[in-house]
Amino acid sequence: VARVLGVDPGLVATGWAVVDSGAGRLDVRDHGVVETRADMALEARLEAIHAEIDRVLEHHAPEVLILEDLYSEYRFPRTALLMAHARGVICLAAGRRGVAVVALAPAEVKRAVAFNGGASKAQVQHGVQHLFGLDRLPRPSHVADALALAFTGASRLGGRPA
Amino acid sequence: VARVLGVDPGLVATGWAVVDSGAGRLDVRDHGVVETRADMALEARLEAIHAEIDRVLEHHAPEVLILEDLYSEYRFPRTALLMAHARGVICLAAGRRGVAVVALAPAEVKRAVAFNGGASKAQVQHGVQHLFGLDRLPRPSHVADALALAFTGASRLGGRPA
Repeated sequence: VARVLGVDPGLVATGWAVVDSGAGRLDVRDHGVVETRADMALEARLEAIHAEIDRVLEHHAPEVLILEDLYSEYRFPRTALLMAHARGVICLAAGRRGVAVVALAPAEVKRAVAFNGGASKAQVQHGVQHLFGLDRLPRPSHVADALALAFTGASRLGGRPA
Repeated sequence: VARVLGVDPGLVATGWAVVDSGAGRLDVRDHGVVETRADMALEARLEAIHAEIDRVLEHHAPEVLILEDLYSEYRFPRTALLMAHARGVICLAAGRRGVAVVALAPAEVKRAVAFNGGASKAQVQHGVQHLFGLDRLPRPSHVADALALAFTGASRLGGRPA
């Protein structure tokens, strides 16, 4: 069984999902979202995100942490820069625990879960619900994105040597 | 005596400088630069930067860490996003040690050390050399920028209650 942690970083909300794969099965082991308030100092927000991801890494001991690739075409540069702060402390947590970080292109993730590289957020949510056999639509979308990343990462790891 | 740590974050090179101010004096206590190689994994580069800044925070126990403001007009978005990863782990280190983070506008720093909000890198280096009475031009420019941040932060702290 391979265990994968998918993370969708954001300063306002960071979604994460732990997925086990093996023997033709795929199970959501745990998931969650860290939310921080805009009136908190940046360093306190980063501490909260780092602490939660570090706790998840310690508790679930995934083999790999999956993130979205860094791409530089953002509509909101300031939001992207703040996201990158969060992404930085998440990568740091993985590095310090010896967990490999793998970045996947957004289009690859969308293709894997919704059969369409340009899928909408709703299509990703429905795809993830179907793939994992969930009773409800995964919410918020940050958790759906983290599940999509974990799914795509797990299917990649299954298909080739880690 | 107030102790200030100025940091100029970058994934390739992060400059830092510790400055003591008080009783009309200003002294460079220590300075350095963390360099990481492009062939290292992102998480390993962030670990190296975090470890060095954390060591400096522990060893010198500054009251405040000074950074440049986050501004969103960058010529190289990908470089800016990578810089933001480094900035994130630096803020995290400060937050975990209870050291306040203060961000200053680049123009304010340039005005303070070179009397010109649009000063060139060379003008900042010369201004810093003069203000601290250094025998040589501070190099690399990341260290000069960290000294400029520390100087500006120290003069601000001196001028008003922290």
